[in-house]
Amino acid sequence: MAKKNAANGAAAATGRVGAKRPSDERTLGRLVDLGTKVSTESVAGSDPFVDIPTRALSNTNWNAKRRILEMGDASQRRNLFNLGQARKFMQTLLIASGCKELIEQGKTLSLRSMYYKSLHTIAGTKEKTFADQEESDPIIEDLEVALGSLREELHVFASERGKVVGNLTIIDNGDEIDLRRMGTGGYAIPSIVEPSVIKFGKCEAKFILHVEKGTVWARFNEDRFWQKHGCILTEGGGQPPRGVRRLLRRMHDELGLPVYCLLDCDPWGHYIYSVIKQGSMNLAFESERMAIPDAKFIGIRASDYERYGLTDDVQIALSDRDTGRAKQIAEYPWFAGKKEWQREIQTLLRNGFKMEVESLITKGISFVTETYVPQKLAQKDWLD
Amino acid sequence: MAKKNAANGAAAATGRVGAKRPSDERTLGRLVDLGTKVSTESVAGSDPFVDIPTRALSNTNWNAKRRILEMGDASQRRNLFNLGQARKFMQTLLIASGCKELIEQGKTLSLRSMYYKSLHTIAGTKEKTFADQEESDPIIEDLEVALGSLREELHVFASERGKVVGNLTIIDNGDEIDLRRMGTGGYAIPSIVEPSVIKFGKCEAKFILHVEKGTVWARFNEDRFWQKHGCILTEGGGQPPRGVRRLLRRMHDELGLPVYCLLDCDPWGHYIYSVIKQGSMNLAFESERMAIPDAKFIGIRASDYERYGLTDDVQIALSDRDTGRAKQIAEYPWFAGKKEWQREIQTLLRNGFKMEVESLITKGISFVTETYVPQKLAQKDWLD
Repeated sequence: MAKKNAANGAAAATGRVGAKRPSDERTLGRLVDLGTKVSTESVAGSDPFVDIPTRALSNTNWNAKRRILEMGDASQRRNLFNLGQARKFMQTLLIASGCKELIEQGKTLSLRSMYYKSLHTIAGTKEKTFADQEESDPIIEDLEVALGSLREELHVFASERGKVVGNLTIIDNGDEIDLRRMGTGGYAIPSIVEPSVIKFGKCEAKFILHVEKGTVWARFNEDRFWQKHGCILTEGGGQPPRGVRRLLRRMHDELGLPVYCLLDCDPWGHYIYSVIKQGSMNLAFESERMAIPDAKFIGIRASDYERYGLTDDVQIALSDRDTGRAKQIAEYPWFAGKKEWQREIQTLLRNGFKMEVESLITKGISFVTETYVPQKLAQKDWLD
Repeated sequence: MAKKNAANGAAAATGRVGAKRPSDERTLGRLVDLGTKVSTESVAGSDPFVDIPTRALSNTNWNAKRRILEMGDASQRRNLFNLGQARKFMQTLLIASGCKELIEQGKTLSLRSMYYKSLHTIAGTKEKTFADQEESDPIIEDLEVALGSLREELHVFASERGKVVGNLTIIDNGDEIDLRRMGTGGYAIPSIVEPSVIKFGKCEAKFILHVEKGTVWARFNEDRFWQKHGCILTEGGGQPPRGVRRLLRRMHDELGLPVYCLLDCDPWGHYIYSVIKQGSMNLAFESERMAIPDAKFIGIRASDYERYGLTDDVQIALSDRDTGRAKQIAEYPWFAGKKEWQREIQTLLRNGFKMEVESLITKGISFVTETYVPQKLAQKDWLD
């Protein structure tokens, strides 16, 4: 598996992105340890194995004190000499080998490309190493938890979506980018935003406003909300991808900025908030470095319908699926104990309709930027 | 309909985006003319009407000389005093009135927000002005063709996707943005890129490389392809939205840069190329300012499978739908006359499989940036 010595670091030669990241040595060490363990066991004639922590709801715990989702202690052993496990064992080492090569060369690949990279026909057979990307993606997640290294540290990236502007300078791979001077377009948030790639420069922002969609973000940027209110303005294209969540968390931690979320009044909006705040259930191991337990939900609230005198024009009827989903979310342990959230979801269900952020347009083109959000912030009127 | 005089220009007061755009006066003039015409007809006691050019395949022509899709001369009259047309007549004027307000205030809105803005219950009835966004979007397109003003000039924007980096400085709403120093993230291409918002500064680029997806774009950016080869690197998140197409066209026209497209070897990739090059069939009226008849397709080619010795790992079987779609595309008038495109689609069908750009990963992490594209460009090996 290990063609090159981990220490030879071809990375240094390959330009700026290729420059060694502080986490690389640690991650490489863990990959080499894994390879060494398996080869030692093989040479000794024993049955090589890899232990993979179980990524399942059954092994996900809600840590009420830390207010994040955590992975439990359960793990599964993956043996080479077990007909039911040999394929996954092989795949795990293949992906590990690929990640080692990426780190050594100072390059990154998408999940899709990682599938292609690890794909071949096993010599002397017609067997493919992977049937499709559905088979390689979970192996990469396995490796993340087995090594305790984020996917980003393994040099593998997922989709990128989302934009940011505001009172902050960032240094991305050596380029200084002034987020106060990004025009109407904005800076596209990359998938990998670890400190080795993205550093923070000057910052006069007092908070972060995260909105659900690009179209709403454009309204806030056009009205220069971030300039008037001294903040950073982000959007995540719906459910924010890991890059956006990690950047929010880093700005929250390292710049000490509170995070306010403006999302639709529907179960999907509530779920987005839940993931930003507590982490996602099927990837609980990432909460540690992505969840923001102090994030606040400033709206849209079900009670806004009456409070702001909206008309029935903005009502979008809840489907049966929405209703079921809302009840499910109400039972999440981190919402279950909160009276205000229970009331919020009850009001949503009683209303029988959802509302989008855009519905505030019926009150005026800039009502959301000039009245709604400033009022909510001034009155500290949010859900926790 | 006209609450304010078109000339009063509240726009000037509302900051940078609000600054008057050169196209605003022209567009406002057309909107006011429309309103004046209808009100004059009403006062005179005649039956007010609006003529809307027909946006249908039947009214779409392929202009072989100009090599773009064009809209024909057919149009439909929309009368107020016609039970079947009154609703659309009302909607057309409502949207026109909303666009006038946007231009006067120097603001923009998304298609979704425009729906909300124009939505209300008609006094004394239970009738909504629009049933849903499906009803308001086509009216905005009607207005575009009726007035001969792009949606962007009406201050309405669609989804934004896509990124750009490279040897170019742009000025976006007064902010100078150096696309050579955008790190790993890149500049997010906004939906409205008209000259009033986006201007071009210094440019040393020799060509534009447009790739299909963000993940492929990240590979090229990480390898600093644009720096090594002196180009501008764009991606459009699949089928590029109008903002990306318009920006490509403007860079092609105003900076004199050839456009090379790197897309998947499948009917979807061919269709993306077709839209970039000739325009889209259901919005033929926009080709005039979006199509790039000189754009080239550099791959992935069906013959690359043998030429680059790819293995069957990269084959993705064509579905029946793919096969049908490929045959349809082969019959497009702008492909029908081209032997090379006929051969390309025949080879795709004979192969029986599609290939993604990412399949080149099987030849090496940076094969696509270091070998494939440089070779194709050096040998001028592309389809026209």
